[in-house]
Amino acid sequence: MSTLRVALVGCGTVGSEVARLLQSDGEELAARAGAKLELAGVAVRRPDKPRPGINPALITADAEALVSSPDVDIVVEVVGGLEPAGELIRTALRAGKGVVSANKALLAEEAPALHALATEHGADLYYEAAVAGAIPLLRPLRESLAGDRVVRVLGVVNGTTNFILDEMDTHGSSFADALADAQSLGYAEADPTADVEGYDAAAKAAILAGIAFHTPVDTSDVHREGITAVHASDVSSAREMGAVVKLLSICEIHDDGSVGARVHPAMLPRTHPLSGVHGAYNAVVVETESAGRLMFYGPGAGGTETASAVLGDIITVARHRVNDSLGPVATWHADRHVRPIGDALTRYHMSLAVADRPGVLSQVSAVFAANDVSIETVRQRVSGDAAELVVVTHRANDAALAKTVQDLAEQEAVRDVLSVMRVEGE
Amino acid sequence: MSTLRVALVGCGTVGSEVARLLQSDGEELAARAGAKLELAGVAVRRPDKPRPGINPALITADAEALVSSPDVDIVVEVVGGLEPAGELIRTALRAGKGVVSANKALLAEEAPALHALATEHGADLYYEAAVAGAIPLLRPLRESLAGDRVVRVLGVVNGTTNFILDEMDTHGSSFADALADAQSLGYAEADPTADVEGYDAAAKAAILAGIAFHTPVDTSDVHREGITAVHASDVSSAREMGAVVKLLSICEIHDDGSVGARVHPAMLPRTHPLSGVHGAYNAVVVETESAGRLMFYGPGAGGTETASAVLGDIITVARHRVNDSLGPVATWHADRHVRPIGDALTRYHMSLAVADRPGVLSQVSAVFAANDVSIETVRQRVSGDAAELVVVTHRANDAALAKTVQDLAEQEAVRDVLSVMRVEGE
Repeated sequence: MSTLRVALVGCGTVGSEVARLLQSDGEELAARAGAKLELAGVAVRRPDKPRPGINPALITADAEALVSSPDVDIVVEVVGGLEPAGELIRTALRAGKGVVSANKALLAEEAPALHALATEHGADLYYEAAVAGAIPLLRPLRESLAGDRVVRVLGVVNGTTNFILDEMDTHGSSFADALADAQSLGYAEADPTADVEGYDAAAKAAILAGIAFHTPVDTSDVHREGITAVHASDVSSAREMGAVVKLLSICEIHDDGSVGARVHPAMLPRTHPLSGVHGAYNAVVVETESAGRLMFYGPGAGGTETASAVLGDIITVARHRVNDSLGPVATWHADRHVRPIGDALTRYHMSLAVADRPGVLSQVSAVFAANDVSIETVRQRVSGDAAELVVVTHRANDAALAKTVQDLAEQEAVRDVLSVMRVEGE
Repeated sequence: MSTLRVALVGCGTVGSEVARLLQSDGEELAARAGAKLELAGVAVRRPDKPRPGINPALITADAEALVSSPDVDIVVEVVGGLEPAGELIRTALRAGKGVVSANKALLAEEAPALHALATEHGADLYYEAAVAGAIPLLRPLRESLAGDRVVRVLGVVNGTTNFILDEMDTHGSSFADALADAQSLGYAEADPTADVEGYDAAAKAAILAGIAFHTPVDTSDVHREGITAVHASDVSSAREMGAVVKLLSICEIHDDGSVGARVHPAMLPRTHPLSGVHGAYNAVVVETESAGRLMFYGPGAGGTETASAVLGDIITVARHRVNDSLGPVATWHADRHVRPIGDALTRYHMSLAVADRPGVLSQVSAVFAANDVSIETVRQRVSGDAAELVVVTHRANDAALAKTVQDLAEQEAVRDVLSVMRVEGE
């Protein structure tokens, strides 16, 4: 049996688990791969830090030298960030080495270019762990659904924000309190910006949209709103209408063949399969023309969980090398137009503080009508001389909905626009 | 761009959809595959039957000649059954052609042998559609989870029985009425044996267990009980304890490294993710050491839905041929011992009609204790001089549980064992 040498770049939560499993489960992994997998080296920023379970002779600070070494067959990049990760991966691909990455930020920007480089040099490139942690999702999209047409991907792909929103829903907490809870439990980082502002979910949406629609989509194409503006009252309003607030990553194809990708909080009916995704779990619904509605569910983060996805990719790349084969590449042949969110069809839930006097509803309704937005339901609550209108619209152009909100704010009868949130799921 | 010629064996619900999509979506599929896919011929039993949308010149009754034709690159077998499907697939593999099949009965018996033949002749063999219809499941198990250790697969993989049990749960119907409904709606066949007796689910369990545990498992290794003995009272008992009855396909690994596969109706708590699988949908929970609990959900049957899985496999095989590559094969290296169900750890729910007099509960409890079965809950209902005991056990050896039921039936104080059903999900 031949031996394949694996270089690991990065040794944090995921990397250390990959190293551990590669070593502890070596015999079984060899049987599955058809070759022994040997850890050739581990590149880290701080080589002096103790790394229990890893032979210190394997540790190096020189990632470039490790990745370039002619006796390395497979490079596993779990260090994250655009650079130097990008250049290390390009170096490996140029040398025809198989590459496995968990780097969502990099893949969101450069998947088409990196795949082109991989094809040019006859190398494999896999990155299942970059989206939805342990859940097998990218391979099913790239391969199992390669004969189908995806029309929509709707996902809860950020565990931190899902944990926070779940806390707000379950305990009526404020965003700040739920975030503090998430931080004390290790679900959110000290600087939670990447999660709560939706950057992480947007990178994943870009990767998903690119693969699903065979079209280059990068992070700048993804409309992004985080959850910092979600109030306890939004969550309780959602609850009143049998819905729950989730941060959704949505990729969709429009009737004219253009595509769109967006990340924002939205109210989702409690009957929708994604409404039952709790805590730090992830789930993704994929709707296609032939297969219909599919759902993939599982842990979206965690060192061991994510290591499962990384090791699956390592075994796949190893099997290909044993066979002198290459995996099928994702294709970006379609090059569809990427629409801005203003062109997306969405629904809005809004709460308005209005004057309590006859004619106000008619005045408010006229604003919707003038913007060609149709109202699905209106509820009115009165207390003293103030009244609250809760309006849910039918699907309309997002720009028209945003304009409606703006016009409503200018109405003399509207004292305040209390909250606005999109509604997803039929 | 090169052309790959695809032979279709079988042109029923699935085959005719595959033919339609291959022809109507040709340009897009070619872009994804990297080669034009041309329908080379369609082998059917009745060549005179009109086949709308298929060029009559492509129709043939001679499947053997079609499959053997040197200008066929990929053979798609959607005819089902052991023979002649098996021999046609073997002929194709021996000639180095890529094979895509949806044949659960054949793969349940011969997956290891067919894969060995495929490897020997440098051919690809894919059969995503054989289990859980449109849901990408086998490829995730074979490839995405290749670096992990599966400990349990728990699935609702037969849509017909799920539809029937769902009807019984929702409307309180009897099995006979629910079956008649399923037949009139086209969810069950005129002869429903394969579905309601669990043969279909058992074949799928064999395939799943083989791939999950890298061990040859065939249908005869799978303990099989159907749903014909499920009574409306079992379903209502389940409902009373917050559970629902599902026909489950269960593959599991035991502490000693042996594996087991079983198909039987079981009560599942309504909080379990599989409890929410309604109608003819399928879902499979895969539990692994590293990834934790994953779930895959979607349509388990239907011509167009299943065609999605078949086409995904065709594109994968085509891409490999364009690259002069081979896909990674499933491995059966582990060759673990396959345990009979008697050795499985299960829980039982049972209802007993007992005499209503002091000491009966103590006498009944003694029977459980004598068989080393621990009781989780007992409920007692009295009407007139008769009483009913509803017992739910803790996990115990299935043989010991079966023996307990047998011993109980022989107790003078036990008038009748009204129902016995396994309980799954913690």
